[in-house]
Amino acid sequence: MAAAAVLVVGCAEAPAPKGTIETIMNRKSVRAYTDEPVTDAQVETLLRAAMAAPSGMNVQPWRFVVVTDQAVKDALCADSFNKMIGQAPVVVVVCGETTVLRRPRGAADDAEPVPMPNNNWTADCAAAAENLLLAVEALDLGAVWTACYPYEDRMAPTRKALNLPEGITPFCIIPIGHPAVEEPAKDKWKPENIHYNVW
Amino acid sequence: MAAAAVLVVGCAEAPAPKGTIETIMNRKSVRAYTDEPVTDAQVETLLRAAMAAPSGMNVQPWRFVVVTDQAVKDALCADSFNKMIGQAPVVVVVCGETTVLRRPRGAADDAEPVPMPNNNWTADCAAAAENLLLAVEALDLGAVWTACYPYEDRMAPTRKALNLPEGITPFCIIPIGHPAVEEPAKDKWKPENIHYNVW
Repeated sequence: MAAAAVLVVGCAEAPAPKGTIETIMNRKSVRAYTDEPVTDAQVETLLRAAMAAPSGMNVQPWRFVVVTDQAVKDALCADSFNKMIGQAPVVVVVCGETTVLRRPRGAADDAEPVPMPNNNWTADCAAAAENLLLAVEALDLGAVWTACYPYEDRMAPTRKALNLPEGITPFCIIPIGHPAVEEPAKDKWKPENIHYNVW
Repeated sequence: MAAAAVLVVGCAEAPAPKGTIETIMNRKSVRAYTDEPVTDAQVETLLRAAMAAPSGMNVQPWRFVVVTDQAVKDALCADSFNKMIGQAPVVVVVCGETTVLRRPRGAADDAEPVPMPNNNWTADCAAAAENLLLAVEALDLGAVWTACYPYEDRMAPTRKALNLPEGITPFCIIPIGHPAVEEPAKDKWKPENIHYNVW
């Protein structure tokens, strides 16, 4: 009985981590946050998840700006649509390096690599952003992906607010906090969007 | 005692689902597969995960072609780099609808919506692809994201092989199977890619 009791306690005291499929299906956009802060440890977990994303040729073109300064957050609110950015305890701006150092095609093996356009940078940054959003859900936090690229009216104030260097383009802005309200995830299952072998 | 015993059995016999953060950190590109088939139920789980991704204005521009026909798989192998596509039991081609029906800006409320370019379709399809890859890892399957867009030499044969209609662009090709070899995930944590408040 004692052994059984211990096992029962063991189960009760070690909650299973949120299952991956459950997290993917439960992720939703959260636009209202409580005043409870997001810890540095939580932010590190989110960024580790983001950097674990795949990238074309493993270039890892993503860069991240973690914003907690209220003045900077306010400067990121390009339009009222984005006002939740100023209300979140922490905001992560996912940026991309749009070029990659490569030897020109056909160049000699000892040729100097030169900056070439990276055609995969937006897809890679999107995968990193999605990993981050799923980690947010796994940590019982809430966030929303707000697009920045390719909208100049959002990229320009973001570049200015973050003092981004040339070659670094802001991709999306993700305000993060503890959800102020519990919202269910949308059911977006549409079998009509699936085709088999040929369209 | 009976109740305790039931609880103990419940704990012992119900393995916890793979934790989300663990899955994100363990996802890796798998390019070699065994002959073991991927079940229809597994494919449905992968597609449900993909369709749970966020999308700009919730347009959900993703479309999926599930390929199991060997001749179609072979036709997708545009170059030797992609030969694993022909060797996977199932291949999912993530495509995107590149336009969205909207009323022109400033048009009357009763104006007919017309097809407008969807600037978010690649980011949305990338988020769906990443969800699918994480679900693959959660199900102990293996897959690899092979880029199709924006490379014409890969898009053209894919469009032809899948008979894609106008307005549907192939985004990436994901061969899926049971891993032939166990590979560890790459450690891509780079604190130097993080900036605080301003670059």
